[in-house]
Amino acid sequence: MARHVKKRSHKAGLPPGTPVHIGERKSESMRVTLMHFNDERVTERDISTPDEVRAQREGPGVNWFTITGLHDVEKLTAFGSAFDLHPLVIEDVLNTDQRPKFEDYGEYVYIVFKRLGNNTTTPDSVTEQISLILGRNMVILFLESESEIFDGIKDRLRSNRGRMRKLGADFLVYALMDNVVDNYFAIFETLGERIETLQDSLIAKPTSESLQVLHALKREMLFLRKSVWPLREVVSALQRGDSPLIQNETRTYLRDVYDHTIHVIDTIETYRDMLSSMLDIYLSSLSNRLNEVIKVLTIIATVFMPLTFIVGIYGMNFRYMPELGWSWGYPLVLLLMAVIAGVMLVFFRRKKWI
Amino acid sequence: MARHVKKRSHKAGLPPGTPVHIGERKSESMRVTLMHFNDERVTERDISTPDEVRAQREGPGVNWFTITGLHDVEKLTAFGSAFDLHPLVIEDVLNTDQRPKFEDYGEYVYIVFKRLGNNTTTPDSVTEQISLILGRNMVILFLESESEIFDGIKDRLRSNRGRMRKLGADFLVYALMDNVVDNYFAIFETLGERIETLQDSLIAKPTSESLQVLHALKREMLFLRKSVWPLREVVSALQRGDSPLIQNETRTYLRDVYDHTIHVIDTIETYRDMLSSMLDIYLSSLSNRLNEVIKVLTIIATVFMPLTFIVGIYGMNFRYMPELGWSWGYPLVLLLMAVIAGVMLVFFRRKKWI
Amino acid sequence: MARHVKKRSHKAGLPPGTPVHIGERKSESMRVTLMHFNDERVTERDISTPDEVRAQREGPGVNWFTITGLHDVEKLTAFGSAFDLHPLVIEDVLNTDQRPKFEDYGEYVYIVFKRLGNNTTTPDSVTEQISLILGRNMVILFLESESEIFDGIKDRLRSNRGRMRKLGADFLVYALMDNVVDNYFAIFETLGERIETLQDSLIAKPTSESLQVLHALKREMLFLRKSVWPLREVVSALQRGDSPLIQNETRTYLRDVYDHTIHVIDTIETYRDMLSSMLDIYLSSLSNRLNEVIKVLTIIATVFMPLTFIVGIYGMNFRYMPELGWSWGYPLVLLLMAVIAGVMLVFFRRKKWI
Amino acid sequence: MARHVKKRSHKAGLPPGTPVHIGERKSESMRVTLMHFNDERVTERDISTPDEVRAQREGPGVNWFTITGLHDVEKLTAFGSAFDLHPLVIEDVLNTDQRPKFEDYGEYVYIVFKRLGNNTTTPDSVTEQISLILGRNMVILFLESESEIFDGIKDRLRSNRGRMRKLGADFLVYALMDNVVDNYFAIFETLGERIETLQDSLIAKPTSESLQVLHALKREMLFLRKSVWPLREVVSALQRGDSPLIQNETRTYLRDVYDHTIHVIDTIETYRDMLSSMLDIYLSSLSNRLNEVIKVLTIIATVFMPLTFIVGIYGMNFRYMPELGWSWGYPLVLLLMAVIAGVMLVFFRRKKWI
Amino acid sequence: MARHVKKRSHKAGLPPGTPVHIGERKSESMRVTLMHFNDERVTERDISTPDEVRAQREGPGVNWFTITGLHDVEKLTAFGSAFDLHPLVIEDVLNTDQRPKFEDYGEYVYIVFKRLGNNTTTPDSVTEQISLILGRNMVILFLESESEIFDGIKDRLRSNRGRMRKLGADFLVYALMDNVVDNYFAIFETLGERIETLQDSLIAKPTSESLQVLHALKREMLFLRKSVWPLREVVSALQRGDSPLIQNETRTYLRDVYDHTIHVIDTIETYRDMLSSMLDIYLSSLSNRLNEVIKVLTIIATVFMPLTFIVGIYGMNFRYMPELGWSWGYPLVLLLMAVIAGVMLVFFRRKKWI
Repeated sequence: MARHVKKRSHKAGLPPGTPVHIGERKSESMRVTLMHFNDERVTERDISTPDEVRAQREGPGVNWFTITGLHDVEKLTAFGSAFDLHPLVIEDVLNTDQRPKFEDYGEYVYIVFKRLGNNTTTPDSVTEQISLILGRNMVILFLESESEIFDGIKDRLRSNRGRMRKLGADFLVYALMDNVVDNYFAIFETLGERIETLQDSLIAKPTSESLQVLHALKREMLFLRKSVWPLREVVSALQRGDSPLIQNETRTYLRDVYDHTIHVIDTIETYRDMLSSMLDIYLSSLSNRLNEVIKVLTIIATVFMPLTFIVGIYGMNFRYMPELGWSWGYPLVLLLMAVIAGVMLVFFRRKKWI
Repeated sequence: MARHVKKRSHKAGLPPGTPVHIGERKSESMRVTLMHFNDERVTERDISTPDEVRAQREGPGVNWFTITGLHDVEKLTAFGSAFDLHPLVIEDVLNTDQRPKFEDYGEYVYIVFKRLGNNTTTPDSVTEQISLILGRNMVILFLESESEIFDGIKDRLRSNRGRMRKLGADFLVYALMDNVVDNYFAIFETLGERIETLQDSLIAKPTSESLQVLHALKREMLFLRKSVWPLREVVSALQRGDSPLIQNETRTYLRDVYDHTIHVIDTIETYRDMLSSMLDIYLSSLSNRLNEVIKVLTIIATVFMPLTFIVGIYGMNFRYMPELGWSWGYPLVLLLMAVIAGVMLVFFRRKKWI
Repeated sequence: MARHVKKRSHKAGLPPGTPVHIGERKSESMRVTLMHFNDERVTERDISTPDEVRAQREGPGVNWFTITGLHDVEKLTAFGSAFDLHPLVIEDVLNTDQRPKFEDYGEYVYIVFKRLGNNTTTPDSVTEQISLILGRNMVILFLESESEIFDGIKDRLRSNRGRMRKLGADFLVYALMDNVVDNYFAIFETLGERIETLQDSLIAKPTSESLQVLHALKREMLFLRKSVWPLREVVSALQRGDSPLIQNETRTYLRDVYDHTIHVIDTIETYRDMLSSMLDIYLSSLSNRLNEVIKVLTIIATVFMPLTFIVGIYGMNFRYMPELGWSWGYPLVLLLMAVIAGVMLVFFRRKKWI
Repeated sequence: MARHVKKRSHKAGLPPGTPVHIGERKSESMRVTLMHFNDERVTERDISTPDEVRAQREGPGVNWFTITGLHDVEKLTAFGSAFDLHPLVIEDVLNTDQRPKFEDYGEYVYIVFKRLGNNTTTPDSVTEQISLILGRNMVILFLESESEIFDGIKDRLRSNRGRMRKLGADFLVYALMDNVVDNYFAIFETLGERIETLQDSLIAKPTSESLQVLHALKREMLFLRKSVWPLREVVSALQRGDSPLIQNETRTYLRDVYDHTIHVIDTIETYRDMLSSMLDIYLSSLSNRLNEVIKVLTIIATVFMPLTFIVGIYGMNFRYMPELGWSWGYPLVLLLMAVIAGVMLVFFRRKKWI
Repeated sequence: MARHVKKRSHKAGLPPGTPVHIGERKSESMRVTLMHFNDERVTERDISTPDEVRAQREGPGVNWFTITGLHDVEKLTAFGSAFDLHPLVIEDVLNTDQRPKFEDYGEYVYIVFKRLGNNTTTPDSVTEQISLILGRNMVILFLESESEIFDGIKDRLRSNRGRMRKLGADFLVYALMDNVVDNYFAIFETLGERIETLQDSLIAKPTSESLQVLHALKREMLFLRKSVWPLREVVSALQRGDSPLIQNETRTYLRDVYDHTIHVIDTIETYRDMLSSMLDIYLSSLSNRLNEVIKVLTIIATVFMPLTFIVGIYGMNFRYMPELGWSWGYPLVLLLMAVIAGVMLVFFRRKKWI
């Protein structure tokens, strides 16, 4: 539950645009790195003060800033103004409980979405918020913590593989988003396997533990859906929008990200349908089992109650009970009871109870 | 229930635009205060007659009127005409059972929405209606009762913190709305905790009390949803509308309020889904429990009915029952019964009932 | 049920535009009254022939015709042509099983919707169809039966209260619609109270009678929804349409009616959600009760079956049963049984069954 | 079931536009009749060869061709080319498993929809497909079998009642559609009565037979919905479309058909809601009954198990059981048992079980 | 399950546009065939190198390339550049886990959708992805494996039946799509029969096996829906789009494919509704059965418990039990018990339990 509700409430009453960090502190310290590239060269270095940013921004080539760690509000705000970002953008970057969204501020566009990862310790997925600023020849990437998922992109830039060096800042933004969305598939494959395992165990034997797992998976799905669903509009707005920052060629690629997002959403909906239908199986399995148990009870009671009544009769102490004196009385009664039991069993067999 | 249906019916048959107060009387008396501010100065004072309003309205700077208490229909109507408000606006301000809405009257825009608060005595939330008029250099805020939630804004105006003094009446309206929406998060954090508590208790032991709580939470959610959902359109209409009263810079900020509203609505929907799924858990827990109880009954009956039958046999009073005379008869019967009971228990063990 | 399906089938095969009265006959005879008003004067009189209509229509001022009673098809058709109404309009006026709708015929607009009323004898609501024609300086109101709900409007016209005399025919139409919609709130307050009562009784003790009531309320809601829902589009079409018959000032008022309609629809949806959720409560209450009953059965069986078995043992007639001869045999067996019963009860107590 | 899936599969692999008859053969032979009318005269005759069609088409006045029986593929194709119809139209006319649709081919429009009828032998409804071609001064009506539902229209044309002779081909198309839609009401009245009957019987006594009926009605509704729902778009496209074949006056009439279609769809949705809610009633009735049965069992067991235990005690054969020797022993035990039974009954009475 | 989630995750981290084959390898080797046709002649041959493609493309007439087998990534990429295809298209062709889509690349359009087939070994359907490129006078068809479903089209081209030779590349694309969609009907007829069989067996006797089948059919439907649903937009985009590659005449035909797709989707939705409603039947059947079993138990217990109590009374060993000495005691007790049993049976008969 905890992660469903981040503590936003302490923001209430603060002036709008006040930067406050909402979310866990996920990295030791804030770190700013720069990767500068053009057709010919790639240079990488660390940035320690906002002033370096200002100096760097004017030059030619593409500047890709990566800011890791969002808890140092003051430093982040300083960098934010070095980048000439709107106070609301800084506020949104700091608030890691954002709904994925896209905002066009004219000079730059702001994109915020979620990275999903498998948790190594618990079966739940983890999410981290990723903020992206795409400006003229500039990309700023805000991460909650260090992550290797963008190492492939860095390697390609360094080795001049792919067309990234030529295609500029907007293509870099596409590559970063594509990377994150491709990662979603890994998460959903894991989830798909967990659902499959659960389904097999539900059919084999419905326990209340499997109900717990089912419920946990449903909540997980609810949570992932909330993280992924709005991304569709974000990518669509990017692709169809009229921002001059995005070239037509990149739009073709963004259409591909859009298709992947739709595919992920389809998968989520399919999984949700499957989980609902598994609850139905569980409930009807329970009913089935109850029926089985009750049948056993009924058979036992129906066979033995009449027999116990009969032996009760001949346990009565009346002085004049002629049967008691007969020498064949006992065997005859035993025979009678065997017949009754036999009839009952035939009856149940014909009702297909046994 | 009571609060779901406010007594509107006594309005039927009255001429349209007739001001009638609908809702509880929440404050002792009606009070009108004025906060006048411009770039340089802030002055605050109480207003006692509509004529003062008329005198004040013409001056430069922004006039922020706050009217607290809505039960004095006559006085409110008088102030309404001093502000040149349409009779329908006064009618809507008085009727605290409004759906959130936005209406553009040309000279001014009228916004009505809900403030949520935690009730100190019952677990239910409380709502109060807030009406806002944004005119040229004028903001009128109608409140059902005194509230501290806007004190932060007043302080910022007084101390000239933030950019509020410069940004004028529309930014003030934004700040008021933002404040209220930020407050929603606090309510939903409380609700989220209540849902979490309920969920834990439902899994541990499903009682009919927890069902009552579940039901109460569902109704609460229904009620909050009705209060919050239409706000989305209101903010969207404000942000995208073409009223000249709202400057472009403020629209950027309103987009932020819009995002928060969507976020709250997402949270409501997630909670509703969680509550539905908790009802399923509850019902299947009940079924599970029934199964357990019935199993106990069946095991007991299945073990003891045959045994009782056997002892019944040797309780019969037939004269010729050879077993009764055997010296090993009694121990042999006891042994037989022990074997039967043992077989039954093995059978149930293999069925995994025990 | 009956009222859900009115006998329309006997219309099949008739030429389009054939006037046939569908619905119950609700008034003794058809009556046409005229209220003529302008800024200065109000005159009222009865109209007996269509020719009087023709004479009257040409004059200045607003003519408000009220036609009560729809069963006299011929007379109504005659009046219809005196008003120059399209045959389809007459057909629709006569068919009281209309879905609320708005149609613009150029020279006039035709509006049909439903009036709701509490039935004095049964808990069901009653509906009557109201047809309105708005022409140039003319309003025609068709009613199924005499009703007092428009008396307030007539009084205001007579006493020149409100602005009705000045604002003309379209404002009169607005006033009539507003009146009817305001009336809806009364119906829904009654329903809200019935739902509240039902809910309390369901929680206290779920009986099959309360299920019947629940079901009846659901059907009632279905029925009211069908009557109210389409009104939203009707009012919206009136308010946003471009008919020159409706002045801009009236549109502002119609927006208010629109808001009220949305409010009513919201209430219906909330009630439907509440009723659904009450069915869940009912069903889980039933399950809960079943569990309780079964627990009693299981406890009784589990305690007494072993005891009955033990007393059975010592009722056997074996010749060599040493215990029977012991002088402490009887008390020891009684003690043993008390211990067994005690252990059982402790076991159930720990399972929280008792 | 059968009728839900018509054998379309044997069409797979055939070239597009290949005419294949899909559906049952419903009439003996194909018959083509012509009704030619203008303001002054109506002539009727049978057409036997496609060439007669070609000769007839050029003349003045409106030609209404009715083609009954669709199984003679070759002949129909020949007529199709005499009418200059697109091969896809002929293919669609022959395939009686069409979804209602409207297609504008420029020279003519093609409309296909369903006629509903009560089956005389089974409670299911029957559907037949109706195809309509509206060309310049020409209407072609394709029917699966002879039917009297259009006799009224023919009579009116013959007797010059109504305005049909004057209003031309498009009004004739309207009249045919109106006739079919008016017929829907009859079907739904029958269904409404069946639902009402079922509801009464479900409340009185829920049997598995009534569940079968409920299920059959749900499927019927699913099937009718599929036949009627798309008609809405068809009529809307006809009414709002810009085909020059449809005059403005006819559009007014088509709006009326549109309203009727919406009304039918509303009725279907209401019935579906009612049927769903009846399933809930059925299920909770079952639960209720189970509770009742279990209560009887529990009461009997709870009263007699302790009593049987007590009589068992005094059936034991211990030598030293002092009570057995008391002269008041027997009556005292009887009294004790009466008291126990009485206490039990009071207990159950207070639990409101009896 | 396996087929619901294809292993896409190993793509994460690769540069966009990297061709990777996702899916099973379904054919031995990749094969490229060419069918060249114009009004006069059809020639067919195999293509072994990309250079042949380049030579062929420039000539007149329509070139229809069929590429079967998608696992040879390198070769396919080489052919892709010979066709001047965008790297993303090659990536999408290789990834057989695509959602059906349509993309307009200006010079050519790219269409991807699914072919359904009945599996010969399991009851599940199989899907294969079909990619289509429509360029100027060129069609490229990518298949996962050899299939005979397009043999009919080839035959028609060879024999100059139909109008395909004349109507060019876009009509060929239409014919291919139409063929695949017509094939869907066969699949759904099979499914319809399986649903019908299941329904009959559910009504006759609800077993947990039939629940498994029901569940499998629901999943199947979920899966087919995912494959078919997006095709609607694809065909709609093709038909309404403004690509100059598609002639107006072909658009008329595409409208027909669109109607068929809608029809298939309608069928899927109807089947889903039917399956849901069958689950309800199953669950209420279970409840019904439980009721029956419990009734048997209750009747048996209610009849025999009182009787066993009575015989227990006269089995007590009290010295003074006057009844025991009566000569009519035994027959009287037997009579009494017969009366009690009779009364019970009458009671149950009147409750309609037996």
